[in-house]
Amino acid sequence: MVGTLGSEHAFATRTNRLRASTIREMLTATQRPDVISFAGGLPAPELFPLAEVEAATSRVLRRDGAAALQYSVSEGIPALREWVAARLCARGASVCAEDVLIVGGSQQALDLVAKVFLDPGDTVVVENPTYLGAIQAFDAYEARYLTVETDALGLVPDSLEHALEAERIRPKFLYLTPNFQNPTGVLLAAERRASIVAICERFRLPIFEDDPYGELSFDDVVPPTLLSHESDCTLLYCGTGSKIVAPGLRIAWLVVRDEAVREKIVPAKQATDLHTGTFAQYVFAELVADARFLDAHIASIRSLYAHRRDVMDVAMRAHMPAGVTYNVPTGGMFFWASVPESVDTETLFAAASRDGVLFVPGRAFYPHRDRSNGLRLNFSNAGDDAIRTGIERLARAIREVGG
Amino acid sequence: MVGTLGSEHAFATRTNRLRASTIREMLTATQRPDVISFAGGLPAPELFPLAEVEAATSRVLRRDGAAALQYSVSEGIPALREWVAARLCARGASVCAEDVLIVGGSQQALDLVAKVFLDPGDTVVVENPTYLGAIQAFDAYEARYLTVETDALGLVPDSLEHALEAERIRPKFLYLTPNFQNPTGVLLAAERRASIVAICERFRLPIFEDDPYGELSFDDVVPPTLLSHESDCTLLYCGTGSKIVAPGLRIAWLVVRDEAVREKIVPAKQATDLHTGTFAQYVFAELVADARFLDAHIASIRSLYAHRRDVMDVAMRAHMPAGVTYNVPTGGMFFWASVPESVDTETLFAAASRDGVLFVPGRAFYPHRDRSNGLRLNFSNAGDDAIRTGIERLARAIREVGG
Repeated sequence: MVGTLGSEHAFATRTNRLRASTIREMLTATQRPDVISFAGGLPAPELFPLAEVEAATSRVLRRDGAAALQYSVSEGIPALREWVAARLCARGASVCAEDVLIVGGSQQALDLVAKVFLDPGDTVVVENPTYLGAIQAFDAYEARYLTVETDALGLVPDSLEHALEAERIRPKFLYLTPNFQNPTGVLLAAERRASIVAICERFRLPIFEDDPYGELSFDDVVPPTLLSHESDCTLLYCGTGSKIVAPGLRIAWLVVRDEAVREKIVPAKQATDLHTGTFAQYVFAELVADARFLDAHIASIRSLYAHRRDVMDVAMRAHMPAGVTYNVPTGGMFFWASVPESVDTETLFAAASRDGVLFVPGRAFYPHRDRSNGLRLNFSNAGDDAIRTGIERLARAIREVGG
Repeated sequence: MVGTLGSEHAFATRTNRLRASTIREMLTATQRPDVISFAGGLPAPELFPLAEVEAATSRVLRRDGAAALQYSVSEGIPALREWVAARLCARGASVCAEDVLIVGGSQQALDLVAKVFLDPGDTVVVENPTYLGAIQAFDAYEARYLTVETDALGLVPDSLEHALEAERIRPKFLYLTPNFQNPTGVLLAAERRASIVAICERFRLPIFEDDPYGELSFDDVVPPTLLSHESDCTLLYCGTGSKIVAPGLRIAWLVVRDEAVREKIVPAKQATDLHTGTFAQYVFAELVADARFLDAHIASIRSLYAHRRDVMDVAMRAHMPAGVTYNVPTGGMFFWASVPESVDTETLFAAASRDGVLFVPGRAFYPHRDRSNGLRLNFSNAGDDAIRTGIERLARAIREVGG
């Protein structure tokens, strides 16, 4: 309960792109025991591998204790960098250990890339909608946003091309989440990937690929990363241990194959926090070195999340009024629903929170905050009954506000 | 061995204020097994409480496992914030848990304060010399430096007052390390502390106190912090678990009693990395909650470091040529020595590293790099024989280069 409450709070306070009243309502509502939250982006804690973390910690301390508790290099410990490279190579990417930098969660990767690439007023190209944490990281460096349309197959290549042709000053990079995007849950279609890479190559636009959910594919086929494409394009990639092991370890990785870029990011990391926690790196590396454990563990996450996705889907079909549309995600942690344009989901949020259910109003995910009829629903962090009851409450609230 | 090599490397690569040739020599020299290093700033790994960390981890995972591995709030977990507040109150400061923010090592505190306070070209007031990691954090925000003289009693209040009177644009804050400063080892005299706070109050200059070594007092009297002074001055304070438990956990704390400042720092922390590792926070909080363990552990660190300080002092007195002067620190981890002004310690470094001993040349600690006859010697990370042999080698190198 502490963890859940805490994280709702972290989520709420960090989303200063949400209305202050929405944040206050969210904080107040999470204090009520009967409230069901689809607002967070939390993994299912019942799957955290507690015994395995305990055993891995003991092995690390007995074998490498002095090193695991000492200062370490800014790039990350070699064992973990090698594991990341091998795992990405298994997905078809061409990555070596030297390309991998270990960071303190994906949010730090977003911050470091922004710190190195952006001066105030510089433009970042993003999907519309895009990940809220990315907007917040880029906002801190006073970024401007060039938004590109997305549909059920992901970023629309023609829209990207037209947007870049119309832009007089070259943007600094394209940020995108090809696999089970947050907030939309969409998987970028295979046939669009090569087009997007080719367009970016033509415009000499670096790509920053964020891939927290790629491994959470419900079809048991892990989609590739853009790193698999042969290209002269500068490709940065971010992956994380938060969704396949646990967020509390704060272990993520930023892959930078371009040495000139890496030589800027490493000193930025050093000036920011010297290095990611040595202890957490050792424990994480020890855990994932057991491939049999990791494969089985990820399979159990996929299975549970796929089930919860189904439960939510069935409940939505049973209860949602006409005029509500939504995707059915094939991986990740989120549904993205749309209500009629006459409904502002921030208004809906107030009604829903009174009815005992929370979600994230969609406006915050649009850099220009110019659309207000979307909502993000997390399905990884609630049990079956909570999902069913929560969707019933949400459907009622939508009817109340005239959806 | 991995830990030591790793950290030397981390140290060397982060000090881009050192000459590239010095960094290359340091990296090459650390590969040689016979080289003795006084260059790092590493705690003695033989004192790391491995068994206690293992036991604390088990207790945490069995009692609070799901919370310890989940996302958590940006401010830090309540138990740890409360412990920090209580520990500072026991040193005479007036601090409550809400004032305390848990950060990923002191370096992150430096980065966050700089991020919130500094625009390019803004001035920071610093001791001369000052901590290299602080210069690097502030450099990232394009700070200018107003340097203030220090002597054997620490920052000179008259020098601070004159410097501030001469400055037309008000600096953003004073950064200082009153207790066993890095690099000089100096303890700021009690009678100067009130003067410095009063001067800063008069000039409405916030103070940012960095206190990594306060608990490492060899006199068994822990010096107070500036937070103990009643003042309208904005006082920020940074402490760390790196020197009293272990650096690899990356747990430090930033105390911000001024709510308006805190309301800027918390979102900056959120945008940077969401929160400090939950797992490391839980393990650290569990460890330090055992006051009997912590007191005995810190006593053993003090005792070992005081002994090594004595060994280095005796060796210096026996071997150093005339013209070499140095402090004898009463706490912390460093000697600061001066050679005749005709000797540049970067030249000395090249000779000493050939002779098999490393130190940090002093120029990097001066923001304007305008003094070159100082050198920093770490005594916490080498055994007695290594200290004696290393000082003999260093004395020989000083004679070689004409000290």
